[in-house]
Amino acid sequence: MKKGTASIAFKQQPCILGAASVVGSKEGEGPLGKLFDQIEQDDKFGKNTWEEAESELQKRAAQLAIQKAAVPKPAIRYLFAGDLLGQSIATSFGLLEMNIPLFGLYGACSTMGESLSLGSIVMSAGYADYVMCLTSSHFASAEKEFRFPLEYGNQRPASATWTVTGSGAVILGKEGGIAKISGITTGKIVDYGIRDSQNMGAAMAPAAADTIAQNLKDFQIKPCEYDKIITGDLGKVGKTAVIDLLREQGYDIEKQHMDCGLEIYNEQQQNAEAGGSGCGCAAVTLCSYVLRMVEEGKWKKVLFVPTGALLSKTSFNEGQTIPGIAHAVVIEGKNV
Amino acid sequence: MKKGTASIAFKQQPCILGAASVVGSKEGEGPLGKLFDQIEQDDKFGKNTWEEAESELQKRAAQLAIQKAAVPKPAIRYLFAGDLLGQSIATSFGLLEMNIPLFGLYGACSTMGESLSLGSIVMSAGYADYVMCLTSSHFASAEKEFRFPLEYGNQRPASATWTVTGSGAVILGKEGGIAKISGITTGKIVDYGIRDSQNMGAAMAPAAADTIAQNLKDFQIKPCEYDKIITGDLGKVGKTAVIDLLREQGYDIEKQHMDCGLEIYNEQQQNAEAGGSGCGCAAVTLCSYVLRMVEEGKWKKVLFVPTGALLSKTSFNEGQTIPGIAHAVVIEGKNV
Repeated sequence: MKKGTASIAFKQQPCILGAASVVGSKEGEGPLGKLFDQIEQDDKFGKNTWEEAESELQKRAAQLAIQKAAVPKPAIRYLFAGDLLGQSIATSFGLLEMNIPLFGLYGACSTMGESLSLGSIVMSAGYADYVMCLTSSHFASAEKEFRFPLEYGNQRPASATWTVTGSGAVILGKEGGIAKISGITTGKIVDYGIRDSQNMGAAMAPAAADTIAQNLKDFQIKPCEYDKIITGDLGKVGKTAVIDLLREQGYDIEKQHMDCGLEIYNEQQQNAEAGGSGCGCAAVTLCSYVLRMVEEGKWKKVLFVPTGALLSKTSFNEGQTIPGIAHAVVIEGKNV
Repeated sequence: MKKGTASIAFKQQPCILGAASVVGSKEGEGPLGKLFDQIEQDDKFGKNTWEEAESELQKRAAQLAIQKAAVPKPAIRYLFAGDLLGQSIATSFGLLEMNIPLFGLYGACSTMGESLSLGSIVMSAGYADYVMCLTSSHFASAEKEFRFPLEYGNQRPASATWTVTGSGAVILGKEGGIAKISGITTGKIVDYGIRDSQNMGAAMAPAAADTIAQNLKDFQIKPCEYDKIITGDLGKVGKTAVIDLLREQGYDIEKQHMDCGLEIYNEQQQNAEAGGSGCGCAAVTLCSYVLRMVEEGKWKKVLFVPTGALLSKTSFNEGQTIPGIAHAVVIEGKNV
């Protein structure tokens, strides 16, 4: 462990055996629509509340990932999961019937990076044969939790992002599969003093820049060694900021940079303001588009960096800043 | 990894180098008062809001643990932390200035068990020289988050527990220190259909019983091999339930059982109804009383099982049940 580093290069590299993405109707109509495993037209997913709908999303993604990875459910030793809702209730109720030991996580929208990081640590240490890493978000449950009830019909500024209704789940195993995880870089809390909960891209960009710079430094590589550097949900405002912040530190990621929030909706036609956001945004883009490109060998090595904004309704109402956090995962093709 | 097990026995056993406990005035007046590192008479901890007070609690416990373990702060590679508040804001703002990579956790009041479990995995896998595991709760921020504003002055039933104002922090290292962690058992979500948020002992007892039984089965040992089996915050109602539930499965833990919630307040004089609760309850009892007894050799081997109730204001208001989860950590003296 070199001092000042925050990364791990795995000797035993965990393999991604399978991944599943389940989304709502709006995501299904977007540019990645054809790549998702399941698109549900009923945004309540047959349930009575938005929270139950989000639990159902996680449940379906988990079941589908197990099917796609062709792993018997009892062989999965641990779940690493969380969501955006207070006390992670989408996860608690969504994964109840799994009957698998759970490490509950909170990393705001960086959760997919955090869950893959901890899952990879456990796998590479030899403490499990299989683990599942997953997360979710739902537009309506998130609006209710963080902003206004939908019925209020508030106006949204251009810097606001649109929380993705979706859940992504990944099964890690020891061998085989479609991709492997070769390293991780764990993020610190970074606070640039942003206080506008309708401009979370600006709040999260400093954390993304910090983690990406740390990754490049720890592994002593240049941005061009990645085919893509993929942030979670910075959106339009945050994309410019993260590129600028890294340029100030001497790293040019403009060519490699991709933001899941800018991939998931059609900017011209879907009225999603600055882009998509939420834990589900990075998770479903990973479990559809990103892993497919890696599996097909079009991208050999990518840095997946979901980004989280650390706020609650209470902290916002009390005038607190919105710190950010970002957790990076190095994903490589099987034949690298 | 044997199928059906949920435990790890560590070959490289992480050592507890130091631990710190910071509490509020009520906890300071209780039976463990003399054992806490810091008792603050101002329940707002010099801050403007209850949430900031809770952040200050975590910050102080973290700083004190670093001092007591005599580890340079930059050598601590990861923080494993969380709290009870929506979006874990006590942690986000309390640990901001630490500038150490953070894995944010949500395990409700089982968080100290979860953080010690993940911290131990990372240590025993050789991915860090030092890590810090911590959590907190605050009576006033928890009442506001889960029940009623304090100003409302609601009556509390006899089954209600009193959220502990306190934070406990533990530094793990490779050698030396006051105790070691020899194993863990990770809990599943367990739901017995309890819906009363003023009776969380009953909601959590089934999860505690499940994890304790799993631990005894996985390690093939009897309850009497532990000097103490220590649940987090079951209180009076939950204590009876966990003993009864385990007896039904053929395990008698009555002699060994101790509940942190029943240790922290004086039942006759302190008016804490069924006992103490909250993430901080198990954490500060561990970091004061439990670790002292282990260090002094009075207890050679204990099973520390913090228990969490998985609910939010929203899930409660929507009529959901309150599932529980419990994470067990086997703590042994250095000279065992």
